[in-house]
Amino acid sequence: MKTVTCTAPVNIAVIKYWGKRDENLILPVNSSLSATLGQNELRAKTTVAVDPSFTEDKMWLNDKEQSVNTQRIQNVFREIRRRARKRKGDGDKSKIFSQKIHICSENNFPTAAGLASSAAGYACLVYSLAKLFDVDGEISDIARQGSGSACRSIYGGFVEWQMGTKADGSDSFAKQITPAQHWPEMCILILVVSDQKKHTGSTEGMQTSVQNSRLLEKRIEVVPERMTNITKAIKEKDFHTFAEITMKDSNQFHAICLDTYPPISYMTDVSRQIVRFVHSFNNHSGETKVAYTFDAGPNACLYLLEKDLGRVISLVNHFFPAQDNGLNLKVQGLPVSIDKPSQKDIDALSLPVLPNSIKYLINTKVGEGPQILSDPSESLLTDNGHPKTLSS
Amino acid sequence: MKTVTCTAPVNIAVIKYWGKRDENLILPVNSSLSATLGQNELRAKTTVAVDPSFTEDKMWLNDKEQSVNTQRIQNVFREIRRRARKRKGDGDKSKIFSQKIHICSENNFPTAAGLASSAAGYACLVYSLAKLFDVDGEISDIARQGSGSACRSIYGGFVEWQMGTKADGSDSFAKQITPAQHWPEMCILILVVSDQKKHTGSTEGMQTSVQNSRLLEKRIEVVPERMTNITKAIKEKDFHTFAEITMKDSNQFHAICLDTYPPISYMTDVSRQIVRFVHSFNNHSGETKVAYTFDAGPNACLYLLEKDLGRVISLVNHFFPAQDNGLNLKVQGLPVSIDKPSQKDIDALSLPVLPNSIKYLINTKVGEGPQILSDPSESLLTDNGHPKTLSS
Repeated sequence: MKTVTCTAPVNIAVIKYWGKRDENLILPVNSSLSATLGQNELRAKTTVAVDPSFTEDKMWLNDKEQSVNTQRIQNVFREIRRRARKRKGDGDKSKIFSQKIHICSENNFPTAAGLASSAAGYACLVYSLAKLFDVDGEISDIARQGSGSACRSIYGGFVEWQMGTKADGSDSFAKQITPAQHWPEMCILILVVSDQKKHTGSTEGMQTSVQNSRLLEKRIEVVPERMTNITKAIKEKDFHTFAEITMKDSNQFHAICLDTYPPISYMTDVSRQIVRFVHSFNNHSGETKVAYTFDAGPNACLYLLEKDLGRVISLVNHFFPAQDNGLNLKVQGLPVSIDKPSQKDIDALSLPVLPNSIKYLINTKVGEGPQILSDPSESLLTDNGHPKTLSS
Repeated sequence: MKTVTCTAPVNIAVIKYWGKRDENLILPVNSSLSATLGQNELRAKTTVAVDPSFTEDKMWLNDKEQSVNTQRIQNVFREIRRRARKRKGDGDKSKIFSQKIHICSENNFPTAAGLASSAAGYACLVYSLAKLFDVDGEISDIARQGSGSACRSIYGGFVEWQMGTKADGSDSFAKQITPAQHWPEMCILILVVSDQKKHTGSTEGMQTSVQNSRLLEKRIEVVPERMTNITKAIKEKDFHTFAEITMKDSNQFHAICLDTYPPISYMTDVSRQIVRFVHSFNNHSGETKVAYTFDAGPNACLYLLEKDLGRVISLVNHFFPAQDNGLNLKVQGLPVSIDKPSQKDIDALSLPVLPNSIKYLINTKVGEGPQILSDPSESLLTDNGHPKTLSS
């Protein structure tokens, strides 16, 4: 049995991807840009294996067997095998391509967190299969065909997804803008909002937006300028410009959702209170110290610099406390102490206190791209190709 | 003492006014369209008087004296007096124009309801002054200079505010599309949402949108087509088209607010649940039977036909009950009985029940324009020109 185990990161967009021009190839109507998050906090882990004894392709995701007969999985399989064959030359007779594949994947964070796990998952699947089949070169365009934003999780640091213009999608792939180490002061704080009811799926939602949001036509004109400016800001570590564009683009994405018919609402009253908190804190600080961005759910992702992290967390803990009982919010990820905020800060923000509105925090940073785990003990599959967690 | 007492209606826009191209003259960036509401349910009442004994212009609003030295009030006074003089000819020496004015105004609905009262108030002031000074002809452009949407309250029925193109605003006034009696089946149900915290003022809010919402540029292109189509729908009593445009334009207006930086949020989780209720009810009904529209606050205004009113109110009362104690929501305005909804409807909508989220309902219809009250007992001022409510 030939096997490979890898991990891949989650990414959070600061210029949002919303709308496809090709549903099958997953080609977007605008370019997007994201930060890749640290994998100690948030990652997908996948083991892929091929063996002559396997009778069919099989996949287990978070201990549940899933069908591989979806268009997206099959597109990924087809493309990986095609490139592997091509690389080995037409004459190659390697049996490996005819062997069935077993896939086992899991996330180190609860799906209930409402964090986009498909990006990390498909990036990890494609990266693992590429290693398994010795496929070199650009593979983010293969990940893109599994889940659009997955292409950005193929690289670490700040990453752009160039929308491309070709009908076959060959120029629609991800590209690293700056490596993970470029901006070490940058912190990413995720506020997991308690209310996690089922939301409109992003695939369905963006389809409807493309069909009937009149304002999306304008957004498509606006994004290129934002891509240029935020890329420059990231390269120059210009936090103010980075933060303003990030917040404006998050707001515009949710505006497009609202302009869709029927309207789509991902943000809740708690999300909006976090927005007010950030603007109030920035006004009080006399400069833009924190940026928020929201994906297809109520959770907030805050970008801020290390020097402000302690002060911001203490204020988040004050205005969005876990309970009325005075216990601190739980923080997952990088260690951070929650101190008592200054009365001056509390008075200046003058916001209501909303207990039980935030479930917990995830404290992370910009991180690396997918990793290979060579230690056999890391494999999620037994020697006979079944999930360790399901074997006894 | 010469005195006039009038009432003027509230109007609710179905094509929203958001953004000025001239702050002083109050000239909008797009045309808008509204229904004038019945005055038994919602109206402003104003008494204006002039007398040689008055030493200064004075105004009382809802029993509180207000300064008349605001740009908007002064613009209205200047324009009314200018037209009155013009009408009487330059030779006219009437003392009336040099006499001071006393104004007393009140609304028959609580300001706490969060319903735009300035439109009714300025329409009533301008209409009353026009009668006092014998000004004939178009006066909606004067009301416009008090509060933009006030120009639409000068007429009954469905009314459009033509944005106009001239710099002096002389072609920016209201025009009746259909009289109050045109569509007698049309009902208007206002859901007054409990949470009534202070919101961003619309004057300030639309200023910021014009300054920095990129999507507003697109909205301005979209509105003319909507004006044409909804006007046709109203004239032909095509409820489906009327309702879809109404909902889409409300959503687009709130999308523009969200695309503004910092973002403006008027709708709350309750507002959004009302949106889901309407779409769910329409889907279940297999046709568009109800339309929602939201102004600069969380209250919902529902447009629907008489035949569906009882069923909709009973479902609103079920999913947004007054309390857990089973008492019905209070309904102000036109009498309507709240029956138990059918289990079939309840199951089909499958929505959560949100007690205490709606304070009360106002049940009304499309109504007439401003009215003169000739009975002296209707006057809000005593014979010496002071508010009756403040005199003893």
